Amino acid sequence: MRWSKFFIPTLREDPSEAEVISHKLLLRAGMIRKLASGIYNFLPLGFRALKKIENIVRQEMDSAGALEILMPLVQPAELWQETGRWNDYGKELLRFKDRKDHDFCLGPTHEEVVTDIVRRDVKSYKDLPLILYQIAVKFRDEIRPRFGIMRAREFIMKDAYSFDADWDGLDKSYQLMYETYQKIFSNCGLKFKAVEAHTGAIGGDVSHEFMVLAETGEDVLAFCEKCGYASNIELTPAVSGEKYSFESEKPLEKVYTPGVRTAQEVAEFLGLPVSKITKTLIYILNEEEAVAVCVRGDHEVNEVKLEKLFSGKSFRMANEEEVRKIVGASPGFIGPKNLKIKVIADKALEGYPNFVIGANEDDYHYINANLGSTFKPDLVADIRKATEGDLCPKCGEPLQFTRGIEVGHIFKLGTKYSESMKATFLDKDGKMKPFIMGCYGIGVSRVLAATIEQNHDENGIIFPWQIAPFQIAVLYLKEDFKENAEKVYKRLSQRWDVILDDRAERPGVKFKDLDLIGIPVQVIFGKNYEKNRKIEVKIRKTGERKYVSPEELENFINRFENEKD
Amino acid sequence: MRWSKFFIPTLREDPSEAEVISHKLLLRAGMIRKLASGIYNFLPLGFRALKKIENIVRQEMDSAGALEILMPLVQPAELWQETGRWNDYGKELLRFKDRKDHDFCLGPTHEEVVTDIVRRDVKSYKDLPLILYQIAVKFRDEIRPRFGIMRAREFIMKDAYSFDADWDGLDKSYQLMYETYQKIFSNCGLKFKAVEAHTGAIGGDVSHEFMVLAETGEDVLAFCEKCGYASNIELTPAVSGEKYSFESEKPLEKVYTPGVRTAQEVAEFLGLPVSKITKTLIYILNEEEAVAVCVRGDHEVNEVKLEKLFSGKSFRMANEEEVRKIVGASPGFIGPKNLKIKVIADKALEGYPNFVIGANEDDYHYINANLGSTFKPDLVADIRKATEGDLCPKCGEPLQFTRGIEVGHIFKLGTKYSESMKATFLDKDGKMKPFIMGCYGIGVSRVLAATIEQNHDENGIIFPWQIAPFQIAVLYLKEDFKENAEKVYKRLSQRWDVILDDRAERPGVKFKDLDLIGIPVQVIFGKNYEKNRKIEVKIRKTGERKYVSPEELENFINRFENEKD
Repeated sequence: MRWSKFFIPTLREDPSEAEVISHKLLLRAGMIRKLASGIYNFLPLGFRALKKIENIVRQEMDSAGALEILMPLVQPAELWQETGRWNDYGKELLRFKDRKDHDFCLGPTHEEVVTDIVRRDVKSYKDLPLILYQIAVKFRDEIRPRFGIMRAREFIMKDAYSFDADWDGLDKSYQLMYETYQKIFSNCGLKFKAVEAHTGAIGGDVSHEFMVLAETGEDVLAFCEKCGYASNIELTPAVSGEKYSFESEKPLEKVYTPGVRTAQEVAEFLGLPVSKITKTLIYILNEEEAVAVCVRGDHEVNEVKLEKLFSGKSFRMANEEEVRKIVGASPGFIGPKNLKIKVIADKALEGYPNFVIGANEDDYHYINANLGSTFKPDLVADIRKATEGDLCPKCGEPLQFTRGIEVGHIFKLGTKYSESMKATFLDKDGKMKPFIMGCYGIGVSRVLAATIEQNHDENGIIFPWQIAPFQIAVLYLKEDFKENAEKVYKRLSQRWDVILDDRAERPGVKFKDLDLIGIPVQVIFGKNYEKNRKIEVKIRKTGERKYVSPEELENFINRFENEKD
Repeated sequence: MRWSKFFIPTLREDPSEAEVISHKLLLRAGMIRKLASGIYNFLPLGFRALKKIENIVRQEMDSAGALEILMPLVQPAELWQETGRWNDYGKELLRFKDRKDHDFCLGPTHEEVVTDIVRRDVKSYKDLPLILYQIAVKFRDEIRPRFGIMRAREFIMKDAYSFDADWDGLDKSYQLMYETYQKIFSNCGLKFKAVEAHTGAIGGDVSHEFMVLAETGEDVLAFCEKCGYASNIELTPAVSGEKYSFESEKPLEKVYTPGVRTAQEVAEFLGLPVSKITKTLIYILNEEEAVAVCVRGDHEVNEVKLEKLFSGKSFRMANEEEVRKIVGASPGFIGPKNLKIKVIADKALEGYPNFVIGANEDDYHYINANLGSTFKPDLVADIRKATEGDLCPKCGEPLQFTRGIEVGHIFKLGTKYSESMKATFLDKDGKMKPFIMGCYGIGVSRVLAATIEQNHDENGIIFPWQIAPFQIAVLYLKEDFKENAEKVYKRLSQRWDVILDDRAERPGVKFKDLDLIGIPVQVIFGKNYEKNRKIEVKIRKTGERKYVSPEELENFINRFENEKD
């Protein structure tokens, strides 16, 4: 491709609308443009990268024996009513009426539609297992679409659905997809981790997320280098590695702590470590019941764990006014002693001696509180996030932590959809049984954003070779070299995706643009070519420059392609 | 692909929901399934065919230098308000509100969005010409979705948009797309014609439709074999080839024609040819004005020609009650003499002697009416459809007629969108000018339906080699041949798309299914293989059977591939 015939409207300045680096760089590199909140155009360069990711996904899904289909974005309400999700799904499900006043929605996911396909046309265990997938547009009416195509409303997703005759079959399909996902993200040239995850609104018991590792990731992952355990921190059991030094219980004492509210402030005021302070939070369940939740000051409440404890009930933090009404004191002075409501204490408080709690009276705390003698919680449970110093729940080695961006999520659904939709098949034993299902998603457009979060520097994007919209750029700094540069461009184009920067621009502009759009290899006809017919080859990732003769060039790039990891 | 690992739920019976042959066969061949009115799932076999068409389209668009992008389906109202189409576009434009109560629509076409992209990022004539395209989902809320994926609400379209600095540029881009479309439909293996067409709601002055020729087509095309002229009959100027025999005007006479209403009935009653009778129709313009339209009994009114005459006004036929109110007689007895409203007479009545008209009185007609002496129309114009016997408007040779299905449509838009959206660039002369635009559509999913309308027989689909989901099927009629069939399947799969029918089904079932799904070449290990190691090769299209040795097979198929046209 010649740059002059292509369309890459690069921007010099960081666009004000973008908060995260991938969003900034996608805009600056002329890869995407916003059409409306959370709705983006893919320009030619962005589209090429998207298509490369799509093709890698397709190739591995096909290799795994999954069959590609295409399901509509616009879906009738009836199917969603069968599973109850027409009412249960939040406002992310964009509902509307067609000209005949029938109810429809834009598909945020396709469990209902695919289950309908299968229940109509798959009759027997002999037709199983079956994995159907599509790569298509989805729409989720996010309340806060943000970070460009990272959390868009309209986006491209690969969604796959497996149908098995029994649970062993599901295990196999799930394992197959797990391995397929590992191949996909490896083939994209990404550093990633598969972690145990929360199943959320999709349902089912078991699920894994695939996380692209990046410092800017929204998710925190806990993993063990020894045994390979890995999970989203939402899910990680908190196994404390701390040995509590033996210390006998001291007498409880109420102390005056005027205006001192946060754990940090209390710790400083009392001259104690933050870990010796506790936080008590009030939650409202189903808008009718209040519950107090107590954790150490250096720990964080894990709401996914709470969700499981509250099994299905809606819950939210009480606001300041509600807290005052329920407890009679301001948030910041709340504690688990003498509360009229249920108290849940984190496991880390068990056996932990002489800590500080709020006195349920403004400007007062108790010191030397102890679980058991000072207060008796209704429940002691693991309700905190795992943290530095905690141990692997599998093997007991110290846990590591890192940040990631979720790009894939796989679920064992079981019979959640097949039962509610009466999707059954005739089994070997002559009985009708519901399909055992799994579902498997990849945020294809999000992979593009995550790639950039993981691979960039101050000059722009650093595309992995495998999904670079162009792998090689050829440019010439003098008109004299044009003819030879064209020859090399044509030769390289037979094997690789090459762009010839034939613009009438200053070299500085060209170099800046090429760095910005992240082409892995730059082939430059410059000073050295004039001097001694050596072509300069710049490696975007390392900044290395090599000088090779035109004859050596292809071999050089070939070696680079093979050794790049 | 092995049939046992694929998913082709064929149906024995014609589904009752399908009216046209392509719809029936797409359902019976397990290629599509209905989700809701006008909304279809593509199952694996249908998806494969769709993808093949898509790839042919993509390849030729890329070769033409068009750049692929992806624009959202969900579009904000604001852009449509800029061009006025938010109000002008009918209910096919599905409008809805998002969770924040902002107005959006599902894109039935993308002129607004692409013009917005270009006005933001293309600044100079130096960046022109530019052709952007996408292959993506569209939604049109048709009042009567029908014929399966032929006229669906959600469908796949390739839409392209050209931007030029001047009108010569537009002519070049238009010509380039015209030629590209010819390559695309040729490469799909289709018989088609490009015809001059009506621009309709998209606008602009010049347009061509690409029609797949099929007896079942909804459109009629007129063409001239001598000079190559071709147009949609909606547009064809009616040039009569009839020589009116000299015949002096006879005296006008009112005759009693009790209960005789249609031209055919009047002709029979009076013992005259239908061509001697005229029909007078009453139209209501803009719901305020009535107009009478008069054509010969053997001719049909062409409403597209009327549309142009009524320049922009809405119009519809008056109902019976309205006719009675306006004329004082029932439809069937209306004529152009002594009417109080405007009369438009078709050109074919000029110089046509002694014809029959309604008397504007129930049960009476006039015979021996003549234009000029009997009545003076306010306008004489070409308002009828061209018909058998008419002449080519370019060269005067007799016109031919055929039926077709519109699969592509290209338009010279000019500045319709760029002016209303203030999309301008800086031209050579330092002035800001609006882009000169063209737009170019292909109904990708409709191509699949049209292919089947053109290529089928009583046994099922006959796919052209180029877009067959599988080009070759290998089957063995005895388990003994399985091993050798597998070997051949693997060898052929290296070059072509092959399906191995490894099902445990009776041969009859397999043959029926293979004919139904339209695989061009069937490779059969049957009786002859047992007798003398000859493989039977059946050509789906002709029904021919050849017997070749395993060694000759590849060459045989190779020859077939090269000679198939």
